[in-house]
Amino acid sequence: MKEKQPGFIAKSLGITELICSADMSTGVKLGVVCGLFGGAVTNLGSPGQKKKWYLPDSEFTGMFAMTERGHGSNVRGILTEACYEPSTQEFIIHTPCEDAQKMYIGNSMKGNYASVFAQLIINGDSQGPHCFIVPIRDRHGVMNPGVSAIDMKHKEGLHGVDNGILIFHNVRIPRTNLLSKFGCVSADGLYSSPVQNKSKRFNAMLAALTPTRLGLTVQAIAAMKLGLIIAVRYSHSRRQFGPKDQQEVKIIEHQTQYLRLMPHLAAALALTFTTRFAACMMDHALCKGEVLQNNSSLQALVAGLKAYSTWENLACLQECRECTGGMGFMMENRIPALKCDSDVFVTFEGDNVVMLQVVVKELMTQFTRQLGNSVVGGLIRTWTSSVSDRLRTSFLGFNVDTVGDLSFLLKAVSYRERVLQRSLATRLYNKVSTSPKEFFDAWNSCLHHVTSLALAHIHRVTLEQFALAVQECPVEEDHTLLTKFCLLHGTSLVYQERAWYLEHHYLTPATSRQIRTQLLELCRLVKDEALKVVSDFNVPSCCIQAPIAGVANPRAEWAFYSAPEHPIRASKL
Amino acid sequence: MKEKQPGFIAKSLGITELICSADMSTGVKLGVVCGLFGGAVTNLGSPGQKKKWYLPDSEFTGMFAMTERGHGSNVRGILTEACYEPSTQEFIIHTPCEDAQKMYIGNSMKGNYASVFAQLIINGDSQGPHCFIVPIRDRHGVMNPGVSAIDMKHKEGLHGVDNGILIFHNVRIPRTNLLSKFGCVSADGLYSSPVQNKSKRFNAMLAALTPTRLGLTVQAIAAMKLGLIIAVRYSHSRRQFGPKDQQEVKIIEHQTQYLRLMPHLAAALALTFTTRFAACMMDHALCKGEVLQNNSSLQALVAGLKAYSTWENLACLQECRECTGGMGFMMENRIPALKCDSDVFVTFEGDNVVMLQVVVKELMTQFTRQLGNSVVGGLIRTWTSSVSDRLRTSFLGFNVDTVGDLSFLLKAVSYRERVLQRSLATRLYNKVSTSPKEFFDAWNSCLHHVTSLALAHIHRVTLEQFALAVQECPVEEDHTLLTKFCLLHGTSLVYQERAWYLEHHYLTPATSRQIRTQLLELCRLVKDEALKVVSDFNVPSCCIQAPIAGVANPRAEWAFYSAPEHPIRASKL
Repeated sequence: MKEKQPGFIAKSLGITELICSADMSTGVKLGVVCGLFGGAVTNLGSPGQKKKWYLPDSEFTGMFAMTERGHGSNVRGILTEACYEPSTQEFIIHTPCEDAQKMYIGNSMKGNYASVFAQLIINGDSQGPHCFIVPIRDRHGVMNPGVSAIDMKHKEGLHGVDNGILIFHNVRIPRTNLLSKFGCVSADGLYSSPVQNKSKRFNAMLAALTPTRLGLTVQAIAAMKLGLIIAVRYSHSRRQFGPKDQQEVKIIEHQTQYLRLMPHLAAALALTFTTRFAACMMDHALCKGEVLQNNSSLQALVAGLKAYSTWENLACLQECRECTGGMGFMMENRIPALKCDSDVFVTFEGDNVVMLQVVVKELMTQFTRQLGNSVVGGLIRTWTSSVSDRLRTSFLGFNVDTVGDLSFLLKAVSYRERVLQRSLATRLYNKVSTSPKEFFDAWNSCLHHVTSLALAHIHRVTLEQFALAVQECPVEEDHTLLTKFCLLHGTSLVYQERAWYLEHHYLTPATSRQIRTQLLELCRLVKDEALKVVSDFNVPSCCIQAPIAGVANPRAEWAFYSAPEHPIRASKL
Repeated sequence: MKEKQPGFIAKSLGITELICSADMSTGVKLGVVCGLFGGAVTNLGSPGQKKKWYLPDSEFTGMFAMTERGHGSNVRGILTEACYEPSTQEFIIHTPCEDAQKMYIGNSMKGNYASVFAQLIINGDSQGPHCFIVPIRDRHGVMNPGVSAIDMKHKEGLHGVDNGILIFHNVRIPRTNLLSKFGCVSADGLYSSPVQNKSKRFNAMLAALTPTRLGLTVQAIAAMKLGLIIAVRYSHSRRQFGPKDQQEVKIIEHQTQYLRLMPHLAAALALTFTTRFAACMMDHALCKGEVLQNNSSLQALVAGLKAYSTWENLACLQECRECTGGMGFMMENRIPALKCDSDVFVTFEGDNVVMLQVVVKELMTQFTRQLGNSVVGGLIRTWTSSVSDRLRTSFLGFNVDTVGDLSFLLKAVSYRERVLQRSLATRLYNKVSTSPKEFFDAWNSCLHHVTSLALAHIHRVTLEQFALAVQECPVEEDHTLLTKFCLLHGTSLVYQERAWYLEHHYLTPATSRQIRTQLLELCRLVKDEALKVVSDFNVPSCCIQAPIAGVANPRAEWAFYSAPEHPIRASKL
């Protein structure tokens, strides 16, 4: 790989991954304080506000208060009010009804300041949601007058994070506490903003969340890697069943066991490379002084990565739990807590189904841009050209085309994305043009199609990024190993969607069966090398902790299994 | 439905479901004491032993000690020893090594007696595993000399159940503590058994576990129903997003939401009817005085039901958790605890992958029996006759055959099962006959095929049982409603496996797409009626508890959502 100095985002993500490996609650709380509160100040504040509210040696901690009881996913509809009072030059932050209570707020039982999203109201007119710094409690924990906090207490996981409800009763804050990058109010109550359109303005603010969302992907990857380290090691030391009158075999030898674990290991690698790519894009953009909200393809990539990585993590951890049997149900072996802590990732900081819609809105925008003005003509042209389909969006050139080749797999995932994109555009166009339907209904009736397209998009990107990383890998041994896992990831993606490929005559029944055979064969092929991969994750023993992974724990001596010897190295002796 | 007096098994399962709805740990602990310990005594003991160890007013509680550190799934390989000493007429129960420690034993930190599986050794020869009643501690909690118990402490769920390790150091028990139905030892050390073959003898003992396994299915169904009640009610009261300038819609209106929940509701109904059928079969067998171990198709049905219901439950609860957003992550709303408590069901009392193999072993035995002596000839005959495939195993006659008809769906699931069965038999035969391979390797290389067949089998049975229940439903309104859910269940089963049907030319690309459209349409069609279904589950409010389902909880007032009005009834007003 090219020697590159990692940027700020890449470095932050590295730190996040390590902290989450040690303890997910600490990682998430750090995400709230630095990523969310810090991100709000950094991305929505003026230079002066950044200096005041986000110092490296600050003696207070922050919160991020966006979600309300009534509006979680549809955050545009928040009801908290911030009325400007020119006479005092203050904003009055107020919770007008139960639905406006700020909910699930992390650090709410401990933190000092909250970045609160509220409708900015001047002379009775709303300028849409803006972000305000509101003092919640002083450094001795005494609540600011007018603020109340209710502990939401027991959750499935993340027991180290205090989540609560914040309620504001006419809380006065100075005019300068409005984070003013996208809108500010003069002393005498005149509003000004660099973005005139209210909706675009709010989108720009939401875009500021992008880095945190990428942080969440890294947190999910940390959980996945830990689960895989534990499950793969145990599968290589635990024995059960075997040929008659012979020693029982290691459980990794059972076809179902390697079939359940290996595709997730391949996906963990694909996600790792794709996240590095996204971090690099983000650092590059920030380095060039770009505002993230203008880079909507990066927005879409990060939204897609958030959804795919957090779902993939849950599926992976569930297989890890089941593949480690009763041991995987014991807290000492970490998998249960990893599952419970990371379960919320699929719905917080943007519900995954909403994230997928963010992806598709961007894909549709790109598509419409390509087509130019005449939507219908454009659609027809595109359909015609798709008859002789080529891998136009891919940057990788290969010649031979059999299902066992990476080029075949890359073309397949790319083909699927483009066909789903075109057909969705057609469907939406027809629905909207043939009946005077509300766009919401048209979109909603295509929602299954929308989510399929979004996942197809992110699947394609992860396979391409994996392929690129393999190409760039300078160590021959690693190159060979990664090539197999990259093929496995592609095979697994095509296998999952083989029904679609059959429906579209992209696979014949015979090639579809071949894909299954190939999946089984690749999983078998890499099952021993999986030990090297999980060891190369380089997670320190003190972060792994699990006794069944060969890390002794005096509180649960009974769970200890020696770390497995590498079967390949062992057989060479 | 025909008025029938429920038998002992049916009644026990009803009680189990209710207790598990109130608290899963209580249900599972009751399962250990009554189902497992009680089941061991009842099914493996002599009449006198039943009287002694399983009285309704007994003042002690029992345990079931089968699993060892070294052998969980492959229980045949347990190492605990029970050596007979004629001079004292005692068995000496001993844990010879670490791998022989009894592990995960429920009630081990409280219980008085354990039914312990150990190798029965007379004069140095083992007669295979047998079950012994071993006193663990007296009624004051004082440990029996030679027995030690180690608390395994923290688990993902089931916090109300104490699981631990039991270790025996030359513990002496009287000769009469060997449960003697399948083997007993005379005073002078002569062994006798009604089953001569050691392997068959052990299988007979394992068969005694069948009722408990069905209990587990009911526990999974209880969890599923609760999750669905909570998620469906909340989806009908929570609003988010909507057409421009109009009230936001109920979240059940989002296509993804009803697509995620409705198939699980259909599956819950299918599982309920199939479990009733299995309970009825079991009661019938017990009523006729049949020994369960001879009814291997019942064994296979129960093993398959255990695997399918427990996996389906986890998938269902995960969707319920995600479809209720952040509220679904809060303990007050019950879904997290239901998930964590029932997660272990997929691996305990027979790991699901092992259960699926039990199913297929029975299917293969049936198949071989059908074919008679000439295996090859038989295979060819069967393949030939499959060309013009008919629904021979189904008892339901329909005429029209379109994908929207139940008959089409019933034929499809039945066809899949039979083709998978035949092709597996052929593959196994070829592997074993063409190379002198060990059977274990042949079987293992087909394991993915094996698990697919087992699930195809149980899917087919659930659809048939659902169809039968609909046929027998006397209330017209319910009949109409159940018909839709039955179609949905069938459509969902075929949709999941549409790749396979396309590979086998059973679906054309066009009919496969039609199945998807049908799935979406059926889910939309039943989303409002789902409220009636979950209400007809008749779970009392005190068992539901969740505030988001409209059950107030003073500890979490903030989570309360009023129970939704029925949209159909409401629209009639």
